[in-house]
Amino acid sequence: MMPATIRPGATVQAPVTTVERGVSSSREDFLAAEEPLEVRVTTNVGGNSVEHKISVTMRTPGNDFELAAGFLFSEGLIKQVEDIDTIAYCTDPLEPQNYNVVNVTLAPGVQAETEGLSRHIYTTSSCGICGKASIELVRTACNQKPIGEFRLAGELLVELPERMKAAQGLFSRTGGIHASALFDREGKLIILREDVGRHNALDKLVGALLTRKELPASNAVLLVSGRASFELVQKAVIAGIPFLAAVGAPSSLAASLADEYGVTLVGFLRENRFNVYCNKQRLAI
Amino acid sequence: MMPATIRPGATVQAPVTTVERGVSSSREDFLAAEEPLEVRVTTNVGGNSVEHKISVTMRTPGNDFELAAGFLFSEGLIKQVEDIDTIAYCTDPLEPQNYNVVNVTLAPGVQAETEGLSRHIYTTSSCGICGKASIELVRTACNQKPIGEFRLAGELLVELPERMKAAQGLFSRTGGIHASALFDREGKLIILREDVGRHNALDKLVGALLTRKELPASNAVLLVSGRASFELVQKAVIAGIPFLAAVGAPSSLAASLADEYGVTLVGFLRENRFNVYCNKQRLAI
Repeated sequence: MMPATIRPGATVQAPVTTVERGVSSSREDFLAAEEPLEVRVTTNVGGNSVEHKISVTMRTPGNDFELAAGFLFSEGLIKQVEDIDTIAYCTDPLEPQNYNVVNVTLAPGVQAETEGLSRHIYTTSSCGICGKASIELVRTACNQKPIGEFRLAGELLVELPERMKAAQGLFSRTGGIHASALFDREGKLIILREDVGRHNALDKLVGALLTRKELPASNAVLLVSGRASFELVQKAVIAGIPFLAAVGAPSSLAASLADEYGVTLVGFLRENRFNVYCNKQRLAI
Repeated sequence: MMPATIRPGATVQAPVTTVERGVSSSREDFLAAEEPLEVRVTTNVGGNSVEHKISVTMRTPGNDFELAAGFLFSEGLIKQVEDIDTIAYCTDPLEPQNYNVVNVTLAPGVQAETEGLSRHIYTTSSCGICGKASIELVRTACNQKPIGEFRLAGELLVELPERMKAAQGLFSRTGGIHASALFDREGKLIILREDVGRHNALDKLVGALLTRKELPASNAVLLVSGRASFELVQKAVIAGIPFLAAVGAPSSLAASLADEYGVTLVGFLRENRFNVYCNKQRLAI
């Protein structure tokens, strides 16, 4: 007998009691779904098929193949969409399919550079390169500077958060989920992805662009719903995106990496106001 | 010649251009510092000293030893403060001290259970336990239910976010940094920690409590500045904290884990309003 199939959705209904100014009421509400996704990579080199367990990330179900592809690309394990042969959920006739394990089979001959995983580092560096080594290590995946010769009007930039929010289906249901949105130079939304994890939302977006062969995204503006961390700038750089705007604050390392790699970095983009931290040449203000 | 010492601060000054309603002005601003911290663990078992590279996390410098201790405790590598012999920054006479590598030396005979690292998993499970295995894996560290027999008044709960914000020194300077704050049953702030990473802020707080021998924190309320994720509930459970309130939304898995482990979970705690998701018995409303 085939076991039951449990396909996780992007939201989960749950009972909630709301207390507002001391007055209590109960109802059913929607929560953003969070489930583990395990990513495995199978390589086929010289006739040998080898499965590598790569990572487990807590993500919102949906666009899982894009998430896996974008993650592998952002982490430097693959360099182009042609490195991927197939992406599929792992199946087992004896167990229920929970859609929580994705297997990426690489094209014959493609090696997975699992040593380069920046977020899951068991470093092999000696103590002689204390400190400095760590930061060099997380920067290694950035081997190119994004290009992008456009100028965006400040009046257009301040409208993007509302455009992103209007397109956020999961946010409107749950009130709490991150988004990454890519806009063209005229402020038109190209693609949006949502996830409980900021990095996952961007990995899904980058994975979609990779699959569509739309990388590097040199003529685009990336907007993220939360703060701008080092890792988000790093992912933007690897995807060739020259303009990153965040609704929240940037960190020091986000600003210095953006500066170094020629990325325009905007923070606190809300309510007709924003800060520019570097590479102002892409803004008409 | 001794190399220079570069002690990273918790904030970094940076030039910024603010554009508000089309009017542009420039000044120096403070950004929350983000720097890598590598955690190493040295074990001494049977006369053999072995160094294990555990993780690299992007954190805001400050309370680094608490962060390392709290991380090891939350991840199940150590069970009690007595498992730690010393914590120190890694030093090398030939390299500048960047304060970015912390070495935790465990007490003689204590093994580091590096296999149990939930956030850096290279699983060894076979395909036969697809999906189910992943979630079991991340739950393994939770081997006890927090206890806590108190009741908190709703009127007191709604005041906690303002009390947390008032104590957030780094937030007031940078406008963008996460916080974890622990309050007693009367709403008095016990301890607060800040970090660019939500998990780090809580690891620092738990590490401080561990060092002070104040775990499990059974009579306390934990408030986190962002959303409530599965991992934050997991860390609260491991620290024995029975009440978790978040300014943002909870995820589905956060709510189900809190329910299962008897933790009172509150979300959207802001502006005299909040939602309760489970274990309402600790709230007087």
